[in-house]
Amino acid sequence: MASVEIPKRYKAVVYDKPGTISTKIEELDTPEPGPGEVLINLTHSGVCHSDFGVMMNAWKTLPFPTQAGQVGGHEGVGKIVKLGPGTETAAVKIGQRVGVKWMAGICESCEACRAGFDASCFSGKISGYYTPGTFQQYALAPANYVTPIPDGLDSAAAAPMLCAGVTVYSALRKANAEAGNFVVLLGAGGGLGHLAVQFSARAIGHRVIGVDHSSKKELVLSSGAEHFIGIDETQDIVAAVKELTNGLGAHAVLVLTANNAAYASSLDLLRFGGRVVCVGIPEHDPVPIKSALPGLMVAKSLQVVGSAVGNRKEAIDTLDFAARGVVSTHYRVEKMDALTSIFEDMNQAKISGRVVLDLS
Amino acid sequence: MASVEIPKRYKAVVYDKPGTISTKIEELDTPEPGPGEVLINLTHSGVCHSDFGVMMNAWKTLPFPTQAGQVGGHEGVGKIVKLGPGTETAAVKIGQRVGVKWMAGICESCEACRAGFDASCFSGKISGYYTPGTFQQYALAPANYVTPIPDGLDSAAAAPMLCAGVTVYSALRKANAEAGNFVVLLGAGGGLGHLAVQFSARAIGHRVIGVDHSSKKELVLSSGAEHFIGIDETQDIVAAVKELTNGLGAHAVLVLTANNAAYASSLDLLRFGGRVVCVGIPEHDPVPIKSALPGLMVAKSLQVVGSAVGNRKEAIDTLDFAARGVVSTHYRVEKMDALTSIFEDMNQAKISGRVVLDLS
Amino acid sequence: MASVEIPKRYKAVVYDKPGTISTKIEELDTPEPGPGEVLINLTHSGVCHSDFGVMMNAWKTLPFPTQAGQVGGHEGVGKIVKLGPGTETAAVKIGQRVGVKWMAGICESCEACRAGFDASCFSGKISGYYTPGTFQQYALAPANYVTPIPDGLDSAAAAPMLCAGVTVYSALRKANAEAGNFVVLLGAGGGLGHLAVQFSARAIGHRVIGVDHSSKKELVLSSGAEHFIGIDETQDIVAAVKELTNGLGAHAVLVLTANNAAYASSLDLLRFGGRVVCVGIPEHDPVPIKSALPGLMVAKSLQVVGSAVGNRKEAIDTLDFAARGVVSTHYRVEKMDALTSIFEDMNQAKISGRVVLDLS
Amino acid sequence: MASVEIPKRYKAVVYDKPGTISTKIEELDTPEPGPGEVLINLTHSGVCHSDFGVMMNAWKTLPFPTQAGQVGGHEGVGKIVKLGPGTETAAVKIGQRVGVKWMAGICESCEACRAGFDASCFSGKISGYYTPGTFQQYALAPANYVTPIPDGLDSAAAAPMLCAGVTVYSALRKANAEAGNFVVLLGAGGGLGHLAVQFSARAIGHRVIGVDHSSKKELVLSSGAEHFIGIDETQDIVAAVKELTNGLGAHAVLVLTANNAAYASSLDLLRFGGRVVCVGIPEHDPVPIKSALPGLMVAKSLQVVGSAVGNRKEAIDTLDFAARGVVSTHYRVEKMDALTSIFEDMNQAKISGRVVLDLS
Repeated sequence: MASVEIPKRYKAVVYDKPGTISTKIEELDTPEPGPGEVLINLTHSGVCHSDFGVMMNAWKTLPFPTQAGQVGGHEGVGKIVKLGPGTETAAVKIGQRVGVKWMAGICESCEACRAGFDASCFSGKISGYYTPGTFQQYALAPANYVTPIPDGLDSAAAAPMLCAGVTVYSALRKANAEAGNFVVLLGAGGGLGHLAVQFSARAIGHRVIGVDHSSKKELVLSSGAEHFIGIDETQDIVAAVKELTNGLGAHAVLVLTANNAAYASSLDLLRFGGRVVCVGIPEHDPVPIKSALPGLMVAKSLQVVGSAVGNRKEAIDTLDFAARGVVSTHYRVEKMDALTSIFEDMNQAKISGRVVLDLS
Repeated sequence: MASVEIPKRYKAVVYDKPGTISTKIEELDTPEPGPGEVLINLTHSGVCHSDFGVMMNAWKTLPFPTQAGQVGGHEGVGKIVKLGPGTETAAVKIGQRVGVKWMAGICESCEACRAGFDASCFSGKISGYYTPGTFQQYALAPANYVTPIPDGLDSAAAAPMLCAGVTVYSALRKANAEAGNFVVLLGAGGGLGHLAVQFSARAIGHRVIGVDHSSKKELVLSSGAEHFIGIDETQDIVAAVKELTNGLGAHAVLVLTANNAAYASSLDLLRFGGRVVCVGIPEHDPVPIKSALPGLMVAKSLQVVGSAVGNRKEAIDTLDFAARGVVSTHYRVEKMDALTSIFEDMNQAKISGRVVLDLS
Repeated sequence: MASVEIPKRYKAVVYDKPGTISTKIEELDTPEPGPGEVLINLTHSGVCHSDFGVMMNAWKTLPFPTQAGQVGGHEGVGKIVKLGPGTETAAVKIGQRVGVKWMAGICESCEACRAGFDASCFSGKISGYYTPGTFQQYALAPANYVTPIPDGLDSAAAAPMLCAGVTVYSALRKANAEAGNFVVLLGAGGGLGHLAVQFSARAIGHRVIGVDHSSKKELVLSSGAEHFIGIDETQDIVAAVKELTNGLGAHAVLVLTANNAAYASSLDLLRFGGRVVCVGIPEHDPVPIKSALPGLMVAKSLQVVGSAVGNRKEAIDTLDFAARGVVSTHYRVEKMDALTSIFEDMNQAKISGRVVLDLS
Repeated sequence: MASVEIPKRYKAVVYDKPGTISTKIEELDTPEPGPGEVLINLTHSGVCHSDFGVMMNAWKTLPFPTQAGQVGGHEGVGKIVKLGPGTETAAVKIGQRVGVKWMAGICESCEACRAGFDASCFSGKISGYYTPGTFQQYALAPANYVTPIPDGLDSAAAAPMLCAGVTVYSALRKANAEAGNFVVLLGAGGGLGHLAVQFSARAIGHRVIGVDHSSKKELVLSSGAEHFIGIDETQDIVAAVKELTNGLGAHAVLVLTANNAAYASSLDLLRFGGRVVCVGIPEHDPVPIKSALPGLMVAKSLQVVGSAVGNRKEAIDTLDFAARGVVSTHYRVEKMDALTSIFEDMNQAKISGRVVLDLS
């Protein structure tokens, strides 16, 4: 392809005062790709609630406080513009459109990597947290870990799929539920939830029972759920789920909210042999899953599993579903300098759907 | 075979005062096998701690109080002496040695049965609880649900395998651990535990780390464990397990005690993707698994599963391992009239190994 | 419910001259249900090509010749009108609508049954072959092995699902292919094929490539296939499949015809790790799968698996998909006395879709 | 650690006349590790029959003829002496003992790599075939793809485990057989076979039936097989296997020879649901598996799967079993200049056990 002009400096949005809602556009030197790396000219980045958590130092499971000057973001899409040394064997080329996600790179050689647990890599890099993220025009990434973007899919539409999409798709694969099985989605109308409904009902063929505040009813049903249960309209959610499932309970439950109450009821919604998949991480002080009683779990052969972010293959498969139109998400596009106000809206729960930054 | 003389009446041991430690030998009329049933002349029955729990009405998960006159027992072995109508197609014959276990019969037609969850059968029968058990010389059982006893295995040795053996073998199959993986057994020196060590280390090839009171050290190591951790000698069990597993933690943990403290620490012993299998049911008021925190489970992709009693195939496989000498249990044989004193010893934790009643 | 009048005699269609196309309506004595059995008043029975094979003694894998007087049929639907002794625990009741399928009963106690291989039961009964079938108004069946028919599903529509539907659903479950994977269906326009397209594309979410004669193109695409390859219009089917699958080949191939040529090409259509599922059984002299070359299978880690008729749970799940309208089949209803002419049409390949006998 | 002296030139054994049995020691320039690579000072390399095949251009599945000057070998062990750029994140360090195997490197980014099929990597490198192998004192390898050698394991003993050991361990994992299941090993006394017996019987707990020429009986039984069948002493091998398996046949069969006759009988040795694993690749003109008849496979739900070389995790697990003494192989150590005579002995089938080159 024709040679690409790469500027010496470019624009990035940094967290200038971590712990507060504040971002600032800065000019940075364009880096050279090191061994095994590629340089990507990013055009879009989704803005995720986890970015907000990182900026605010609100997430207790992360080991260190965020540093001033951190470039955030972990849902980036752009084109490869330069290949570092030693990238010949990787399946990438100049001009290819690729994505960068939460796990930005893994070592491929520790016990976790070898066992296929990307998210547990002993030296994994997290985009936007101690590794420069995707709220910038140029970023480095490992050649063998970027996610190819399929041709039919718009870059802005692809961005949110790299995080929310992959997360719910991976969690649904861990639900151990077949086509035609009943799956309850707690938090079905949220950012993760409405995507989970689509994947569960449309891609995998589950019979979805969405549970959320009644204001989300239309969104949940139009996303493909067979039934909706409004938590503000229903006295006994366990009874409601049983009634919809021939008295037996669901085959699987996904907890897509950070709500401890949702976790507390989750196991009661299951039939014999059923499985709860934990996705949403409750904030503040950790509280055990109230119904994880050994007696109950033994008597009904129940299972509870945690699902971390998906792996590379799941990312590619997620984008393939999106490219074919099986799943989609609502988003609006904003300029880089709107990031502070986006986070302010997020803080006030004023954002419906997803916001994607236009980085050009 | 030669015709078998079946007496009109026979001896049984009943719970004459449920709620107290009291049993009594009675004479009962020999029943006729109904459609699909066989009549078994039992020669041996193991005495399990669950029998004690049923007699004492101590087990909160059972729905109804035990009735006076209940024949207890659920580890029975004997010979088929009569076939009821409609048993022609079942793989049984007069003179065959068979066993009766906790799940004495299932409907084979409800949703749970069809999905392979014997223990969740909507109308399953429990031997020794509202169904006459195995502390008697003659018992009825469904032709297609008795467990054939392999030729090489002594009846007295077979009896305890029908409950403790099947339970731990089934739980180990649910541990999702391969040969060569590290498996921690909490309560490794107990009745379930020492059998679990044998199955895990000798039959399946796990690398077993046994955890129990230091008085059990020799039993646990001689049963096949690679390492032993004495809970009374070890300040930090999590650290001890990490040290033995290259700093990573175990692939699986089985909780074989009814101890809430064991459950509380169980998830911390795991590596990424590891699984806790719940077997022992804590008595008294139910307490959730303390470390079943959604955040931890998500971050490390952990799993917790409950394992009910095994199914028919697992019972047969268990007996096959025992017949080949891969696993065995210590037991002593007592007469029927010793049952009350056996329960008294059990109540005072004076029983080491297993007691098997000679019913002849 | 109100008591049901059961006649002393009823009408059945028998094979009066096995080996030729000939059937005859006879009057038979209504039998009494034995231990564990129910009596069903059948209202509908599908007519399957396998019935033709049994009548004609054409199927080499069956061990014995069909006897004169055999009542054929293995896709029967009707209501339970009488319960035999010992059926109290089974999940059935008078008036319940149930189905009878190819495997009419299994022993539930042999090694194959215990391992979940219904079709390999050592004493399994085949409906319409040495066990009276479903071309009759009354039939006996084991209480715990009949298939409940869901309320929303018409009896005539349910009948063909009990054989063709279950067979393809079971085979697709064995394909080891996830939602979004490419699945090639060889013989996609046939009786099994068009149902397989619906299950694969609509129920499970596969990306279906249907292969058949070009006359079937519209049927295959309207059943849900993403692509169609006409065998009479395509020189190189392997190349065509590769082109549709990013050059890699499919994740799975189902062979739904009895065509040896289809089998010969099947492995070449797969990507690394792919799986061929054998469903259609070639007639005449057996021929090995030509491309089952150890070298090829090793180099690409390929798999070939045989799929016998589905089990009871799969039958119930199949009917559930049909009741919800996810899958359906075309059929016309005929009277009992039309059976001979139906078989004559079948012999001349004049039947499109399915014929269902009205037995009332 | 102390700095390591790396010579400018070193000794290698090359195929100087591919197509004939001829090797020659040459001096080569020590290479610099490129991006992502490490330089290894090899001390030992196993000599495998596949090396012979590569040298002789005898293996039809390899696409190109071997070039003069090729350094062969694919079972190398040595110490890392230099790290290339970009290897900081990989779990390797100077002085670490590591191994190089048949798949010497994979791209980690193609569809096959992402799906876990190392052996199918679109740009995988094969040690000793178009990539310099392990018959030399220094070799380059990808930092994230070398196999760490556990401390307790001798380098000479480790070498053969990297190929034969991994191959049989991986194949056994694909056999779908549990502890206690019957596994037939065809070619149980060969180089792959005697290791397979050890893994199957001692590591995984299968009940092994070894089949080979009667001269191998003692080796097979002392390796852990429960039964031995001599092909030269047994008229009907199928009948012999049935007799040893309660009339049912085995749960799995591994074909560890290149013998077409072994493949032809393999499926007949299985019970319902059983699986044949193809490992040995027949030479000369390819012949399909004779008993891979669709009718038989469907009727008994049989499976045939190909097993390519194992992946990185399986290599590490294999070495762990060897380090713990669960499995071992007989070998003798020879100097580099003996390679030609070793290949001559190999050609005349004079080699018993394995030969390992001392490269120091």
